[in-house]
Amino acid sequence: MNDWAAQVLQGDRRALARVLTWVENAAAEGRAAWQALFPHAGRAHIVGVTGPPGAGKSTLVAALVQHWRQHHPQQRVAVLAVDPSSPYTGGALLGDRVRLTPRLAQDPAVFFRSMASRGAVGGLAQATEQAVQVLDAAGYNPIFVETVGAGQAEVDIMRLAHTVLVVQAPGLGDDIQAIKAGMLEIAHILVVNKADRPDAQRTRRILEEMLRLGPRRAAAWQPPVLLTVATTGQGVPQVAQAIVAHRQHLQRSGAWQQHEARRLQAALERALRDALWRRWRARVEPGRYDAVLQALARRELTPDQAAAQLLDDAPTLPTPPPRGDAGSP
Amino acid sequence: MNDWAAQVLQGDRRALARVLTWVENAAAEGRAAWQALFPHAGRAHIVGVTGPPGAGKSTLVAALVQHWRQHHPQQRVAVLAVDPSSPYTGGALLGDRVRLTPRLAQDPAVFFRSMASRGAVGGLAQATEQAVQVLDAAGYNPIFVETVGAGQAEVDIMRLAHTVLVVQAPGLGDDIQAIKAGMLEIAHILVVNKADRPDAQRTRRILEEMLRLGPRRAAAWQPPVLLTVATTGQGVPQVAQAIVAHRQHLQRSGAWQQHEARRLQAALERALRDALWRRWRARVEPGRYDAVLQALARRELTPDQAAAQLLDDAPTLPTPPPRGDAGSP
Repeated sequence: MNDWAAQVLQGDRRALARVLTWVENAAAEGRAAWQALFPHAGRAHIVGVTGPPGAGKSTLVAALVQHWRQHHPQQRVAVLAVDPSSPYTGGALLGDRVRLTPRLAQDPAVFFRSMASRGAVGGLAQATEQAVQVLDAAGYNPIFVETVGAGQAEVDIMRLAHTVLVVQAPGLGDDIQAIKAGMLEIAHILVVNKADRPDAQRTRRILEEMLRLGPRRAAAWQPPVLLTVATTGQGVPQVAQAIVAHRQHLQRSGAWQQHEARRLQAALERALRDALWRRWRARVEPGRYDAVLQALARRELTPDQAAAQLLDDAPTLPTPPPRGDAGSP
Repeated sequence: MNDWAAQVLQGDRRALARVLTWVENAAAEGRAAWQALFPHAGRAHIVGVTGPPGAGKSTLVAALVQHWRQHHPQQRVAVLAVDPSSPYTGGALLGDRVRLTPRLAQDPAVFFRSMASRGAVGGLAQATEQAVQVLDAAGYNPIFVETVGAGQAEVDIMRLAHTVLVVQAPGLGDDIQAIKAGMLEIAHILVVNKADRPDAQRTRRILEEMLRLGPRRAAAWQPPVLLTVATTGQGVPQVAQAIVAHRQHLQRSGAWQQHEARRLQAALERALRDALWRRWRARVEPGRYDAVLQALARRELTPDQAAAQLLDDAPTLPTPPPRGDAGSP
């Protein structure tokens, strides 16, 4: 058993923080710890929270965590805040953004973490998935995953979640429309936050109308549109109830297990693609690779033709492993 | 020579539109046409335009296109608008968003296209890259690529561009701060649009301060912060001049060629990863794959262990091709 993983399982918060940093940086130590923790994950309810900047997502998440601690005191709760890559937003800024009350910040049953990864394509979604699994293995449940914005990466991250909350504020204007629409597809619960503003009822009606016009949903779950004022806590218990109701719906309908199977299949495909690439890259002759790259730069070959030429010239058979060692990477 | 590609090279706009639709949908016809067009691409100046919703990006792009047509009448100009995936925003909504004047909309030397791809991880960036290459081969130059939002996918798309414009509007509030920061890193030209609003000078000072505090830039290019009112055209000539100046800077410094080489290397790596995966997947025994997937679902294996087990059991050597045929896929 990996030492760090063992400490995480024993509830050591400093070990947990360190493993999450490794996972975020795609460090080898993180991969080892995550592997050791993987068998212990798979229990937590993962709740995605997304929506445009200014909707009050962070305040809503803080209010939900507070509610959870009061009404489900036996559950430990984690928050993972995922932000677009930036060196400026390293720590302080993100810390400010999530307005944790002093009480929450000191609650040993609450774990807050921000990720500001600057990984490659898909890197952020993958690091987030692993971080969620680590928190899950550490016994946190539910785990709130908050994303800013609504790009493809955010949609990918939201696919991790069992339950997706899309948070809007009244009167964010027509330019937000497109983003709202993209996110509506994956929403299970819609929240109009800052509902003390005049346009709240109108925004709710627009969202309900968009839901009505949207693609028919297979299952019996009809996304509710709820009003909150996260700063005062108004409407927060109803959102918490909807989150629990959605989990129960998933578990009753079998969708929970399907979701789990889909996630694991995607993780396997990613691992296979990475391993195939690493193994092939370690074997290809550098001179050959560079020659094909130069032909590509001269546009004598397309990328597909260049790939075919390299693959057909360079055998990709890995050395057979010693027997009995097939399980280790 | 692919028929559709030949028509695109002859300037047939309907053929161009059709090839772009195929590329967007990752259809086989699109791949074939793109392969045929690839040798003809590599000349266009690709100008990325990004920034938060509400900054007025589309209006600014339309104003820039208009300026280009007046001052560089020999150049044909294309606009590719990339949007977060949504079935709602299929056509009409995007069409509305970009306020092309009737004159621009009918100008045969202007080509406008919106992409609303709902692809997998990395799919949008890849489809955008191919679409840009198709437009490039068709003789459009410059090509404006506009994205909404500032997630990882948008950053990836902006990496395609030689020149990145980041557009802000005054007083978009503190919640935008994080996104501004993430985008500043990749910006070559900063624009404060809607500069007739009271906060414009303050927003400019904030951006200049953030640039000053940001990571030092290697080359001699210092991103200017320009003020525009895109709806009236005010400041647009200065932005156009900055775009041309940045292109000249890239060409003088050799950065243009480096950018091209990086893009092609990334395209080759993607093609190799996809080909390795497809070839392996076609060879693996389905029963074996499912058995490993089930062990993964029971969490007896981690994804990495499952991948290693599958790869070490199933040889990945492709059949050697007949000699002299190595270049075809």
